[in-house]
Amino acid sequence: MPLPQKAVIHELGPREGMQIEKQFISTEQKIRLVDLLSKCHFPEIEVTSFVSPKWVPNMADAAEVVAGMTRHEGTRYTAIYLNTQGIDRALATGKLDMEGVLSVTASEAFSKKNTNRTIEETFAETEKRIGMLKDRGVPADQVSVMAAFGCNYEGTVAPDRVVKLIDRLMAMAMDHGLTIKLIQLADTMGWATPSGIQRLVGPVQDRWPDIPINLHLHDTRGLGLLNAFTALKMSVYDFDSAVGGLGGCPYAGFKGAAGNIATEDLVHLCLEEGIETGVDLDQLLEVARVAEEIIGRPLPGKVMRGGSLPASRARLAA
Amino acid sequence: MPLPQKAVIHELGPREGMQIEKQFISTEQKIRLVDLLSKCHFPEIEVTSFVSPKWVPNMADAAEVVAGMTRHEGTRYTAIYLNTQGIDRALATGKLDMEGVLSVTASEAFSKKNTNRTIEETFAETEKRIGMLKDRGVPADQVSVMAAFGCNYEGTVAPDRVVKLIDRLMAMAMDHGLTIKLIQLADTMGWATPSGIQRLVGPVQDRWPDIPINLHLHDTRGLGLLNAFTALKMSVYDFDSAVGGLGGCPYAGFKGAAGNIATEDLVHLCLEEGIETGVDLDQLLEVARVAEEIIGRPLPGKVMRGGSLPASRARLAA
Repeated sequence: MPLPQKAVIHELGPREGMQIEKQFISTEQKIRLVDLLSKCHFPEIEVTSFVSPKWVPNMADAAEVVAGMTRHEGTRYTAIYLNTQGIDRALATGKLDMEGVLSVTASEAFSKKNTNRTIEETFAETEKRIGMLKDRGVPADQVSVMAAFGCNYEGTVAPDRVVKLIDRLMAMAMDHGLTIKLIQLADTMGWATPSGIQRLVGPVQDRWPDIPINLHLHDTRGLGLLNAFTALKMSVYDFDSAVGGLGGCPYAGFKGAAGNIATEDLVHLCLEEGIETGVDLDQLLEVARVAEEIIGRPLPGKVMRGGSLPASRARLAA
Repeated sequence: MPLPQKAVIHELGPREGMQIEKQFISTEQKIRLVDLLSKCHFPEIEVTSFVSPKWVPNMADAAEVVAGMTRHEGTRYTAIYLNTQGIDRALATGKLDMEGVLSVTASEAFSKKNTNRTIEETFAETEKRIGMLKDRGVPADQVSVMAAFGCNYEGTVAPDRVVKLIDRLMAMAMDHGLTIKLIQLADTMGWATPSGIQRLVGPVQDRWPDIPINLHLHDTRGLGLLNAFTALKMSVYDFDSAVGGLGGCPYAGFKGAAGNIATEDLVHLCLEEGIETGVDLDQLLEVARVAEEIIGRPLPGKVMRGGSLPASRARLAA
């Protein structure tokens, strides 16, 4: 398959990057990061997560971060909310692009660990969630399967299982008159491989040929960009990523969630392969360096150290 | 193209990893690294470089490292030597598998910076080198082109230029009755991309269909494993790499040479895609952690932190 001409890249750094940090990142620095990212022209920046600070201390200032950031035209500013309280706090900011995701985890063990619910309980909860979103006029137009490729507690996940879970979410959406516009497959614990991508993306495309797939990839075993490229070659063009490869902890060992693929490395790959993203790479590389400074440890992104090839060529041509 | 069934992986960590380090790594630790790598069953370990310690201080103890290491059956132990003095020192150890590489750089600027010779002067020197190798009974059966994909001082290198350089090396080899068994394409400064791999590997395979290609890839811009996989899909099965991704300096900025692709990440990818390497991954992951301890800073290899998928599955099955 030829590569797609355009890719849509969702920047998750401010949300996914901060939630894993043990130290509290100041509200001012969080706002600084979002505002710098706004200069890169992303279609979406996921700003924060309205969850209990008891579980995620760095999200205690979610409302303040949203209040303090400056919205730029052309970018959607989104957030995560898992319950009524969260969605109401997000709505109260009056500054977010509200969206509803119907999400389920493909691994029973991880579902319990991560959300304290079985998969069945998650489906029951999703019914309630749809009502809650409808009541507030928030469009629910995405479905998402976490741990879609494998799980540290259950091993490789069979593609057939994921397809069935999506099927149920789709049926539920249809019952409620919702139109699903995106299917997210999240490789939450970095189990995807090139052939794993092919084994899952293929059947999902076959079953829902008109709904684009979003891939949320972690770089736990160094295969992140290879997995993204494998998907690009299958016409997938919608990806999550985090500036600098934020989100990981280099010392977390086996169970540690590694960071998302580094946005600037993905944008750089796209540029080199002739795929338009609309993202300003030079600006983004500056932000990656600032992100590293804010987090206070080296981030795994490579291009911020190696220098981009387009910039190298431009410098040589000058 | 289907993936090859087997891949040949040359471990360069002890040589390529040490040469870039500013601090002197003790002879004892260098021997320790080689001996641990010997337990992984590599077809080849590049042990050291017989070059002037004036230029590469960490290679001052090259002879001592070779004297101290223990050879394991099934592994070839090689070294680098750039002149008569170097080759004689390597021969004097009596413990190395001697091999001759006819090498040229595709970038004029980098040739001068790296070897203090123009490309033309390198060809003249190669004539002398062949004689020197012949006199000592060292087989010269490889050709190599450095900076084959691009150069920080000249930009992207045209594939046609690389093919012509190989052509000249091949003609020279033929004049001297040599049989070339391997063509190395080295991405010395990390300019390769998936389409760059296709643009160069394709024509080289077309011109020399019976000679295997070796790829020496650096991960400067995070594309190392993707480039390797792109080549695997073109039936290339011979790769250089370095345990832990040794060889890089995370703070060297634009001109810094990033490390080779991390051997354990490449072996892991091969395993997951059903490509046999003969390398013991569990043992290698242990060595990667020791390499990090010896070097004294975090290395970029990912699987050593994320855990291998085969080991995860085995643990879950137990």
